[in-house]
Amino acid sequence: MSNQGYVDKRCSSCFAGARRKQIRESQPSTDLSLNSLFRKLSSAMGKKALLFLAPGAEEMEAVISVDVLRRAGLEVTVAGLCEASEPIKCSRGVLIKPDINVSEAKGPYDILLLPGGLGGSQSLSKSKEVGDLLKQQQNEGRWISAICAAPTALKAHGIGLGKKITSYPAMKDQLTDSYDYKEDNVVIDGNLITSRGPGTAFDFALAIVQALEGKEKAQEVAKGMLLNA
Amino acid sequence: MSNQGYVDKRCSSCFAGARRKQIRESQPSTDLSLNSLFRKLSSAMGKKALLFLAPGAEEMEAVISVDVLRRAGLEVTVAGLCEASEPIKCSRGVLIKPDINVSEAKGPYDILLLPGGLGGSQSLSKSKEVGDLLKQQQNEGRWISAICAAPTALKAHGIGLGKKITSYPAMKDQLTDSYDYKEDNVVIDGNLITSRGPGTAFDFALAIVQALEGKEKAQEVAKGMLLNA
Repeated sequence: MSNQGYVDKRCSSCFAGARRKQIRESQPSTDLSLNSLFRKLSSAMGKKALLFLAPGAEEMEAVISVDVLRRAGLEVTVAGLCEASEPIKCSRGVLIKPDINVSEAKGPYDILLLPGGLGGSQSLSKSKEVGDLLKQQQNEGRWISAICAAPTALKAHGIGLGKKITSYPAMKDQLTDSYDYKEDNVVIDGNLITSRGPGTAFDFALAIVQALEGKEKAQEVAKGMLLNA
Repeated sequence: MSNQGYVDKRCSSCFAGARRKQIRESQPSTDLSLNSLFRKLSSAMGKKALLFLAPGAEEMEAVISVDVLRRAGLEVTVAGLCEASEPIKCSRGVLIKPDINVSEAKGPYDILLLPGGLGGSQSLSKSKEVGDLLKQQQNEGRWISAICAAPTALKAHGIGLGKKITSYPAMKDQLTDSYDYKEDNVVIDGNLITSRGPGTAFDFALAIVQALEGKEKAQEVAKGMLLNA
């Protein structure tokens, strides 16, 4: 894995855990609603990730992200941006059925993932639900990640402005006015992880695993896939 | 791309074309049935690939193969091994809807692709439709490819026995008695292309593109994905 430079060395796993603990402790101890119990149970079962899937999403970037994170033990939900419960047609025609509609997304999620693909990224840019979830995620200091064309959706929703990011090279000109643009395969600045395209999707997913679950877990997952972390 | 060794240097693209020409020329010139016209039209539109998708298939290996081949201009059909038209649940829970049921597959296809995943490969091994299509493909001298655990399905159907192959390392012991087992990322022997796992799936797909469409096309597709061919 070649995520040279801009790698946030902070123990992100501990940070996310501390944040959840902080949220829990700010609630009254008598809060025993079903929702609260469900969240506590989910938290005990592993970290949660939400991947947005819109028509025209780059299917390799979406599937590599979901698969690698699930191999690392994260609970990943695929949220579709489509009215019906029909499968979503991705950029090269692969038909993927989301787990839920984006309107059903119930956080908090430890990380949000935005796969690329031009059509998919345009839909992510226009979606109010995606914008609301991204803003809430940013306000609460949790992880956000985007690859390929999807950093343009971050800009559309005003996420991470001024931070170091990267993207698919063709999107660079749309992003340099709002970000500190870099050309590394994976760029991490604070809680924002960005990457470049299908060929860097394994690096992207493994960087997320490393940020949330530590280097050892990323190496273990990479080894099982016959990749070097 | 590191498909060192065992790369068949023959111009496979020309070979497949010559084979189709030979099949066409062996038919009476008065054969103007709709089927014949359809096949001639399909052939003119690009080479055809069929990827088998069974429950438990490794979704990264399936999706990378389909996406990369479609980027190269191949007409790829995803054939599901499932009774209903419902999406197929892959090894890490990604739900993919096939284009057709395997019983609807209408060749000839220039190449058949078998993605890995333990459950998926076991289903491929047991399927009569898959076995029949593989045997016809072998008898007619067209390309066959398999990755990860899927070479075990080649063995189950008696395909390519004695040839050089590779697989996911854990499958090696099941294959050494029937094949000349190698440990390269991609192994090509005659019309048989095999590879090792998710981490070699891009190499596998690009080796197929190179075999069917030439090195220049493989390099062009790799460049667009930000990979080196």
